[in-house]
Amino acid sequence: MASPAVRDQDNHNDAENSSIGYCGKVMNKVVEFPRKLKKFGQDDPRRIVHSLKVGLAVLLVSLLYYFQPFYNGLGDTAMWAILTVVVVFEFSVGATLGRGLNRILATFLAGALGFGVHHLANLSGDIAHPILIGIFVFLLAASVTFIRFFPRMKARYDYGLLIFILTFCLISVSGYRDEEILEMAHKRASTILIGAFIAVFVCVFICPVWAGEDLHNSVAKNIEKLGSFLEGFGDEYFKVVGSGESNMAHLQGYFSVLNSKQSEETQANFARWEPRHGRFRYRHPWRYYLKIGNLTRQCAYRIDTLSGYLNSEVQTLLNIQNNQVQELCMKMSSESGKALKELAWALKTMTEPCSAASSHITKSRAAANNLKSMLRTNAAAVAGVGGDQVRLLDIVPAVTVASLLSEIVAYAEPIEKSIQKLASLQHVQFKSAERKKPTALTSCKTSSSNVGPHHVITMDRLASLQVQESNKEIGSKFQRIRSAV
Amino acid sequence: MASPAVRDQDNHNDAENSSIGYCGKVMNKVVEFPRKLKKFGQDDPRRIVHSLKVGLAVLLVSLLYYFQPFYNGLGDTAMWAILTVVVVFEFSVGATLGRGLNRILATFLAGALGFGVHHLANLSGDIAHPILIGIFVFLLAASVTFIRFFPRMKARYDYGLLIFILTFCLISVSGYRDEEILEMAHKRASTILIGAFIAVFVCVFICPVWAGEDLHNSVAKNIEKLGSFLEGFGDEYFKVVGSGESNMAHLQGYFSVLNSKQSEETQANFARWEPRHGRFRYRHPWRYYLKIGNLTRQCAYRIDTLSGYLNSEVQTLLNIQNNQVQELCMKMSSESGKALKELAWALKTMTEPCSAASSHITKSRAAANNLKSMLRTNAAAVAGVGGDQVRLLDIVPAVTVASLLSEIVAYAEPIEKSIQKLASLQHVQFKSAERKKPTALTSCKTSSSNVGPHHVITMDRLASLQVQESNKEIGSKFQRIRSAV
Repeated sequence: MASPAVRDQDNHNDAENSSIGYCGKVMNKVVEFPRKLKKFGQDDPRRIVHSLKVGLAVLLVSLLYYFQPFYNGLGDTAMWAILTVVVVFEFSVGATLGRGLNRILATFLAGALGFGVHHLANLSGDIAHPILIGIFVFLLAASVTFIRFFPRMKARYDYGLLIFILTFCLISVSGYRDEEILEMAHKRASTILIGAFIAVFVCVFICPVWAGEDLHNSVAKNIEKLGSFLEGFGDEYFKVVGSGESNMAHLQGYFSVLNSKQSEETQANFARWEPRHGRFRYRHPWRYYLKIGNLTRQCAYRIDTLSGYLNSEVQTLLNIQNNQVQELCMKMSSESGKALKELAWALKTMTEPCSAASSHITKSRAAANNLKSMLRTNAAAVAGVGGDQVRLLDIVPAVTVASLLSEIVAYAEPIEKSIQKLASLQHVQFKSAERKKPTALTSCKTSSSNVGPHHVITMDRLASLQVQESNKEIGSKFQRIRSAV
Repeated sequence: MASPAVRDQDNHNDAENSSIGYCGKVMNKVVEFPRKLKKFGQDDPRRIVHSLKVGLAVLLVSLLYYFQPFYNGLGDTAMWAILTVVVVFEFSVGATLGRGLNRILATFLAGALGFGVHHLANLSGDIAHPILIGIFVFLLAASVTFIRFFPRMKARYDYGLLIFILTFCLISVSGYRDEEILEMAHKRASTILIGAFIAVFVCVFICPVWAGEDLHNSVAKNIEKLGSFLEGFGDEYFKVVGSGESNMAHLQGYFSVLNSKQSEETQANFARWEPRHGRFRYRHPWRYYLKIGNLTRQCAYRIDTLSGYLNSEVQTLLNIQNNQVQELCMKMSSESGKALKELAWALKTMTEPCSAASSHITKSRAAANNLKSMLRTNAAAVAGVGGDQVRLLDIVPAVTVASLLSEIVAYAEPIEKSIQKLASLQHVQFKSAERKKPTALTSCKTSSSNVGPHHVITMDRLASLQVQESNKEIGSKFQRIRSAV
């Protein structure tokens, strides 16, 4: 009895933990802790660098206390500088800049508004003063809190809105005289500026981590993961039982793509705060990466469905194993896998996708077309056992896998198009493939002139399409199949 | 030419905006703003309540400034109370409690440690003092920042660790004498306690929003959304062209399920801070909801794949439209949809799932078995056109849809099992279905004794399974089909 397996990393741990006592568990954790710590640092060494950077920034801001001229001028308000550094310093430049700017702007605006309200309340007399202040504080806190719920505001200005409420309340409520407030505001603004400057300085000039670059790389990496799955799928699905080691672990790389939406959106929001860096100009269209990411995820959902057929007990049926269906499915899978990998490489290196990717896409579509032609010709062709009547049940898994594969193959082209669109957008600098790969480009041009306009064809849509077999290879294969039948 | 459509909400807006000028856009936004605001509030009125609650909490804490005994005792440190309220007050009780406890604990621990380090440095003489403090600050800030990267720590103690660094630096760096620090620490601790108390009090006792309840409801709602899709899918896919209005909008409710992982995890983390409330005891197994959520999402990926076949130009093929394949597919879809809806209802109302859900699951599996039997019998049965040879290409979409449907049908049972498991866990109080629905239960018992142990069957796994047709209904249908062939 087979039932859908839940991917769950906890089960393993639960089973492991139940066999040992509580003391043993604690001992295990203590012993394993340094090892885990080391591995965690090695997984992404930028974490260690970031930690050291935070230490350095806090150390720098602490020096303000020991640097007498500063301390004499600022006094106890110097603590706002420490507070700012600790709160503003984030992993990526974009996040740090975003928080820093939010904090500075919100403090200035709320400070000015708070001062105005405080002044107004002072004019209104001793009895009305607390009432007026109370009404203002309540209204402002409530309305700004409501604004924080708006997705767009939450994405970019959440921290600023929080600081806005905070500063407004602190200043308008405080019982100081106007002159005292002005002096306090001046000191506080200076220290916050100093703190934010130190945080941003250390973040940007010592091994900076750019959210934009992370987003760029992770979108490319996700496409590559799907490519790796597709390259490996054919071999894994059609492998003769016992013919080799299972490659399942390699095929699970795409899992992380399924839930990548939120991290991509966060990174895109951070990236918009970042200045020009490396290959990315200011106003690089970061939002566009989310569209590519969406397409990648839709493709990943189909791949997840397809992977369900890998776990089935009978992966292939003997009577279709020796025929061309297997060959064509493997070709569809591996060619679209290669195409996705080429596209991922093109995106990652910011080279216009052409030649190799297009030719792989063409080949995978050709294989899909061939398979379609074969299915159109005759039912018996699939069975490959001469004149025997084919039992539909026997071919259901193969037909489903082929149909899903052709759905997935159809995703390679929109992904290619979206990368081409990205390359053509304003503020984007993609290297031209011409300069890089003159020979590859020639082959690309030839192949695209051979195949005519691209057809994105999925098997479920074929019945309504008059497909022109413009590729000679397809034609000859088609003839061979017809004559075989 | 058909290509996979990217689900993209921005396209519509882009097209709309391009036709009007900049001034028009601004005017539009200004005019639409109050409408949007109103709609946004109506979508979830708890947002308005929360905003008013924040206003109230800030107002309450501001009164401290006007309440002379307090102000005389605390002086300027009263601002820490305002700061605490603004920073700690979150939407849900769990988040507020989590932040409040993190803040209080971290302040106490870091305060004690900072005081110790400050005292130690004072003993070491004037020259060594800043060096020692500098080393400690650097090491602590760097190591705690590194710990913040650990997923488990990040999920629950991120804010506490941040406050830990902050407080430690503020206290150890400050140039005060020991007695001054103790007095400051005392005042600061009191104000933070007061602030946290006010925030938690308002959050818990005025229209509380429980993260745990939200998680519970959203997991149930997600299952219901999948159920709604499946209930509507059959009609939409097999509808005769022009027979009725398209119901596509209703079928898109499942989109939000695809990307629900992160919000569920966040809610589960918040929920663990919450005390007993409503139907949920303390130590309710919130992590278990994530398992149900994982299953639901896996099912949603398959549904997303299936929905790709809804958009195809030729949804059904005439030669299979009049036969039983359509009927069985519609039954599989609608019965599993009803089962999921029943399960969602059971989870939502915390009633043990039984009777209705089980019987729908049984029916959907029976339909899957029937379809399988039909496919096993003969290829021509699918064509339903007598003795004509069936062209494989024509039945590919139908076969794929049937195969995907049976994959999806197979998910209903693990989801049912996981809800049953949840109901049986410690600290969980599910109502027994017996007391609620005596008649339904009887029918449930009867049906489960009729069908024997549940078989989760997907078509790709069928070839290896000796399926016992234990349901009489299945048997009779099977006979009918055989005789029809």
